[in-house]
Amino acid sequence: MGAQEKTQTRERLASLRKRMEAHGIDAYVIMTDDFHASEYVDVYFKCRAYISGFTGSAGTLVVTADEAGVWTDGRYFLQAGQQLADTGITLRKMGEPGVPTIPAYLQEKLQNGQCLGYDGRTVNAAYADTLKAVLDGKEIHYAETVDLVGEIWSDRPPFPAHPIWDLPESYTGKSRGEKLADLRAKMTEYGADRFLLASLDDIAWLYNLRGGDVAYNPVFMSYTLVEQDKSVLYVAPEAAPAELTAVLAQVGVEIRPYLQVYEDVKQLPEGSSLLLDRGSVNVALLSSLPESVRLINRANPTMVAKALKTPVEMENIRAAHVQDGVAVTKMIYWLRQLVNTEDYKNGKVTELDVAAKLLSFRQERPGFLEESFDPIIGTGAHGAIIHYAPTEESNAPIEHNTFLLMDTGGQYWQGTTDITRTVSMGEVNEEEKRYYTAVLRGNLNLAAIKFKYGCTGANFDILSRSPLWELGYDFNHGTGHGVGYLLNVHEGPQRIRLKCVGDDVVFEEGMLTSDEPGAYLEGKFGVRLENLMLCLKAEKTDTAQFMRFEPVTMVPFDRASILPEMMTNRELELLNEYHAQVYAAVSPYLTEAERAWLAQETAPIKA
Amino acid sequence: MGAQEKTQTRERLASLRKRMEAHGIDAYVIMTDDFHASEYVDVYFKCRAYISGFTGSAGTLVVTADEAGVWTDGRYFLQAGQQLADTGITLRKMGEPGVPTIPAYLQEKLQNGQCLGYDGRTVNAAYADTLKAVLDGKEIHYAETVDLVGEIWSDRPPFPAHPIWDLPESYTGKSRGEKLADLRAKMTEYGADRFLLASLDDIAWLYNLRGGDVAYNPVFMSYTLVEQDKSVLYVAPEAAPAELTAVLAQVGVEIRPYLQVYEDVKQLPEGSSLLLDRGSVNVALLSSLPESVRLINRANPTMVAKALKTPVEMENIRAAHVQDGVAVTKMIYWLRQLVNTEDYKNGKVTELDVAAKLLSFRQERPGFLEESFDPIIGTGAHGAIIHYAPTEESNAPIEHNTFLLMDTGGQYWQGTTDITRTVSMGEVNEEEKRYYTAVLRGNLNLAAIKFKYGCTGANFDILSRSPLWELGYDFNHGTGHGVGYLLNVHEGPQRIRLKCVGDDVVFEEGMLTSDEPGAYLEGKFGVRLENLMLCLKAEKTDTAQFMRFEPVTMVPFDRASILPEMMTNRELELLNEYHAQVYAAVSPYLTEAERAWLAQETAPIKA
Repeated sequence: MGAQEKTQTRERLASLRKRMEAHGIDAYVIMTDDFHASEYVDVYFKCRAYISGFTGSAGTLVVTADEAGVWTDGRYFLQAGQQLADTGITLRKMGEPGVPTIPAYLQEKLQNGQCLGYDGRTVNAAYADTLKAVLDGKEIHYAETVDLVGEIWSDRPPFPAHPIWDLPESYTGKSRGEKLADLRAKMTEYGADRFLLASLDDIAWLYNLRGGDVAYNPVFMSYTLVEQDKSVLYVAPEAAPAELTAVLAQVGVEIRPYLQVYEDVKQLPEGSSLLLDRGSVNVALLSSLPESVRLINRANPTMVAKALKTPVEMENIRAAHVQDGVAVTKMIYWLRQLVNTEDYKNGKVTELDVAAKLLSFRQERPGFLEESFDPIIGTGAHGAIIHYAPTEESNAPIEHNTFLLMDTGGQYWQGTTDITRTVSMGEVNEEEKRYYTAVLRGNLNLAAIKFKYGCTGANFDILSRSPLWELGYDFNHGTGHGVGYLLNVHEGPQRIRLKCVGDDVVFEEGMLTSDEPGAYLEGKFGVRLENLMLCLKAEKTDTAQFMRFEPVTMVPFDRASILPEMMTNRELELLNEYHAQVYAAVSPYLTEAERAWLAQETAPIKA
Repeated sequence: MGAQEKTQTRERLASLRKRMEAHGIDAYVIMTDDFHASEYVDVYFKCRAYISGFTGSAGTLVVTADEAGVWTDGRYFLQAGQQLADTGITLRKMGEPGVPTIPAYLQEKLQNGQCLGYDGRTVNAAYADTLKAVLDGKEIHYAETVDLVGEIWSDRPPFPAHPIWDLPESYTGKSRGEKLADLRAKMTEYGADRFLLASLDDIAWLYNLRGGDVAYNPVFMSYTLVEQDKSVLYVAPEAAPAELTAVLAQVGVEIRPYLQVYEDVKQLPEGSSLLLDRGSVNVALLSSLPESVRLINRANPTMVAKALKTPVEMENIRAAHVQDGVAVTKMIYWLRQLVNTEDYKNGKVTELDVAAKLLSFRQERPGFLEESFDPIIGTGAHGAIIHYAPTEESNAPIEHNTFLLMDTGGQYWQGTTDITRTVSMGEVNEEEKRYYTAVLRGNLNLAAIKFKYGCTGANFDILSRSPLWELGYDFNHGTGHGVGYLLNVHEGPQRIRLKCVGDDVVFEEGMLTSDEPGAYLEGKFGVRLENLMLCLKAEKTDTAQFMRFEPVTMVPFDRASILPEMMTNRELELLNEYHAQVYAAVSPYLTEAERAWLAQETAPIKA
């Protein structure tokens, strides 16, 4: 980062402080979120990076008249330290001793009667509650609807407004009319005459629409207000083609401009009862509601409804995973051939090359649209960094005789995929094989469980961890997350992790969940093996309704890295059964050479 | 039940109504509990049985001027129906359609301004809260300190006051002085200057004392009020020998009469802060506290402290389980010989005979004091009734060619045992063996888990259930409960069950817990296999502190009922290892013939 950028940061900070003064704001907070807390943020929303120069995916900038600081977590201490040096902005290392939280800092810094400002559209209502609770008793004024960066940022990119497109019922299995009817029944059950929804994935799901406003997540900037006899969808007018407007009108959906929602909610009639999830709206929207409206604060009913995939979606998901499996299987075969090439031997093949190659294989598959997240391709020790994704700066040549970890996914018309395979590049050693085998055992044992209806992820998690615990190792992440249908790759509400909470969600038929144990040996290597699984009903007996998982990911495991003597007979059976399914599903789409290799890779391993 | 008893019941009910009238009470509730919600209730407290004639272990009698009803659960519908017939008391079948709960019934029945009475010493404070919440808005008066049954019951047995005895530090590993010091540190941490404790097991543990006022549980009727520089133990004066008074005085413990506590707490100084667990005190005691006392409502700190057995206790527990294992192993050998006897062949050996024989084997063991609960000895279909215990009425001859289920335990100076074994009497069939083997697999797999510190029982439970789930069966009880040290056989706070709750207790070193999966085929047979396990620290690595279980129960499983082909190699290894431990521990105490049989019974089973 050059001196020029540093000068620019100092100038922008000075401009911001002038705007603060003009508005009478004593402290201004700039978050990382867009208006919907999306996992990825469009360049339009990158206000914190614009002012501070710090480009990490997490961090909050707080500016006062005489101080400025960026709060970020351990993943970004190094990068933020470099990007913030000589800018007048202090790096605040979250969680380190002596570093105050932002609320504590503001509590210390702000004087009675002073004013705290932020663009409330980027601040979650629950977080604003926390801030205000800490500052309570200090007579602080709040300026919650000021976008000071917008006032400065002359060449700001346009607000994202990619075309919205229709996802036909042959993909969803349920019309938007049916979904609205189900939702309205829930509203009645909850005693709500209106429902305000700000979650982009839920809105896309509800209306069977998709867009392109958030990287990797085919959603579109929107809000919706649903009443019993009509609903309004707030989107950028240029994003909604005329034919879409007509189609939506058929089920009583009216299109209005995106920001109009902030005005419309001010007009909600007195005495109306509004269902809304405080955890998923921003504070600007919440503050716009008239006092006279009765709030019914519950989880969005669309969240669970969206998680229960329809039979049509389940069939499509299986098909998408076969196609995605073909791409990843071809990629593994390509890597097998790669080890004999001069380029590889000379260290000329990098993580980004692998990412590009895998994307090209996916692009050949019917129905593929885009990647479902930033690909994680980690060679050797990079595989041990859980959140690693190669960038131009970190990109490394593929190392020899160690693991290559690939956690990637695709968006298809027929569903969203998310798969991790760890591939031995050349010979791996005994330790690497031991961890690989333990991770594989965990993956297989979790997927094979037949369970009583009523279980939550905290009941299952031990199945994926115990083989690693036997080695004295525990991985520091959850085992499973929900996955959307041509939507977000991380989608609630179910999850698989050790921690018990009172409101854990029960696994239901139609839920799609990842199964991804891992092992990360710092400075050495990483192993993670991830399949997606559908939850299905098994038999119902006198004592219980039983449930099971069906793995839908169709890619072989790394035969050379498996130590069969570490596995039980039952685990070997599970592996062989899975491999037989993979071969049957994927082989028809392979070349002769690929197919011959896959036959060897998936041949039964004897006990 | 004869006409004479029915007449007696009607007379007693009439007497009670006269006392109600004298006290101006419109509805009177008689619970089953003693003053401490003990698991077993002394005859002194059997007021409900005295008035109604219904003798079951659970049930509540509600009497008004014109109606009377006993509320009880499904276990007692038959018995209560017989005992209540022709008495003027209605059987209220809890959980059946149309049967109101007691609060709902009282809400319907009581008029504005009427009076509800009960002996508040027998009513849990939390239950009284529920009652009052339902009746809120009805202007009901409460008479909470009236023992109307006591006014009628002329030949009432004496209040239990068996001698209290000292448990030396060689058994507890910690002096009462140290325990009081630890407790006082907790009180300081919670900001409490006083601590009021009503849980009999906690009081016995705190003072290293035991008694005999509750069947099977060696506790004594008591309360204690602990301050920073002294404490008062409230017990029946005749129960505390003079030498005990002197010994307790050495650590600042004063003895006062049992019921004096109700007067003393009224005198608590203004502004004092009192630690107390609302869930474990009765409403009479709670109502006696002055308004000016600040209540700190938290779980009794003695509960967790008591669950963490000291190293001395752990050593003793192992030794007690060897002796108990000898008794049960001898019993199984005796049953093996029994099948060839004429008495058995002629159906002359009953469940109660088996219970008596097993007690006699235990009585031969050094350190044995009494049984730790009412023995469950169930032949054939009786084994499928989870709460079955043979009585003179239900007692059945031991059936041939089916299972005999024995869930029994002992109180020893060196600890409390609780063990279930299921024994094949003659030949059992394939189905019986299949369930036996699944239950055994669950028992072994749970005991063998090495786990990360931080796990709760909801994380483990699946290990004991999944082999049964594979058969399409789920058992309808928890898998594990905590066990005391020469105290209650059911002792919290840890437990092993599927349900996740937010405040589940983490497993710690020193906890003693049961591992008891089962299968119950109605009308056919029951299988349950229960070992107790100590929780111990395993290795600490970079990623976690690991924990493990050590089974302390030392009794062989039923070799003839095991289908090795249903088990993994690992499970067979676990079985063989356990059997080798059993043989090593128990064989020195056996006769030649018993030892030869045990060697066969525990010989390794090959895969």
